[in-house]
Amino acid sequence: MIYNDKYPSALLQEAVEAIGSLPGVGRRSALKLALHLLRQPVENVRHFTGAIDRLRNEVKYCSVCRMISDGDLCGICSDGKRDHKTICVVESVQDVMSIEKTRQYTGVYHVLGGIISPIDGTGPSDLTISELVSRVSALAKDFPPEETEVIFALSGDVEGETTAFYIYRQISPFGVKVSALARGLGFGDDLDYADELTLGRSIVNRQVFRP
Amino acid sequence: MIYNDKYPSALLQEAVEAIGSLPGVGRRSALKLALHLLRQPVENVRHFTGAIDRLRNEVKYCSVCRMISDGDLCGICSDGKRDHKTICVVESVQDVMSIEKTRQYTGVYHVLGGIISPIDGTGPSDLTISELVSRVSALAKDFPPEETEVIFALSGDVEGETTAFYIYRQISPFGVKVSALARGLGFGDDLDYADELTLGRSIVNRQVFRP
Repeated sequence: MIYNDKYPSALLQEAVEAIGSLPGVGRRSALKLALHLLRQPVENVRHFTGAIDRLRNEVKYCSVCRMISDGDLCGICSDGKRDHKTICVVESVQDVMSIEKTRQYTGVYHVLGGIISPIDGTGPSDLTISELVSRVSALAKDFPPEETEVIFALSGDVEGETTAFYIYRQISPFGVKVSALARGLGFGDDLDYADELTLGRSIVNRQVFRP
Repeated sequence: MIYNDKYPSALLQEAVEAIGSLPGVGRRSALKLALHLLRQPVENVRHFTGAIDRLRNEVKYCSVCRMISDGDLCGICSDGKRDHKTICVVESVQDVMSIEKTRQYTGVYHVLGGIISPIDGTGPSDLTISELVSRVSALAKDFPPEETEVIFALSGDVEGETTAFYIYRQISPFGVKVSALARGLGFGDDLDYADELTLGRSIVNRQVFRP
């Protein structure tokens, strides 16, 4: 052909397609990234791909809370200063990191590894729900139930509500305290811009005024 | 420590830092990408990193135009239907791909592999300028100079102008035709929004009106 709008190299095409398969990375930026990597020293690129391979192949999951970890127990579950009678239930590893960043939580976590979603074909058995239930039943045996708490820190959509309710049905027999994240206007939010549902809920769930 | 805002895994931190070293990828999206890769099947991640390693370690450069290529000669230089007496001088591999996409050019290319930039410490010897000069001198020997042409398709900034002038001084003795990309208002551009320099140049370099 006289005009060549194919890739100049099959290796480049393969790399661009691989990079372009990442979420939020378009074909144009995938090409830019591939050509950037091509300009880097070989050892830098080897370190780049090596770090990703090691993460995928060697990372472990905490045997208690299923958080990613370098050992059998994660840094939080092995931390004697944390409150091990309070379990915060989250969907993902990233949620744990977000909550830790707030520096407001001193309990431990349980990572479900997803959320119940019939559309995506994710059922309870795909999540670490049974492990959570045994953790809670063990807690209820070892401590007065009223001293223990399970906090649902799940998304506010239907899937989140469904998952929380499904778990609630299984742990309520143990009599532990069960709570969920407070929902309402964000701090500094302007009433004009709040959506009706959020504004409505934050009126219903209004809190004691503490000056 | 009771609050844990470190990475939950050294492997994750290593991967996030590697991904975050890519241009235009912030720490937040690097974390999202690392956790995305962690959720993929092992063989997908191996294919992802393998494609990048192969690109960096196995890609070749065309012995004539220095374009990346799977063999000794790129698809354009080995194409008998292209006009090998017209050489378009570009800075990068990406520039060749952009020009090919226009389907307006039938000649061949020469990839400089950069641009003369004292600030970045890039001098003429870091580029494939001497290779270009020998190509042009060979052309001038084999064909009547007026049938041969060198087109500067370099950026319009000082570095681009400097590089073009530096090369021009060395190839003008061969008597080949030398041209540069037309500069002016973009097609469909509105005069109100054109910068003075561009508008001024497009008046000075006005073209014959062809209805």
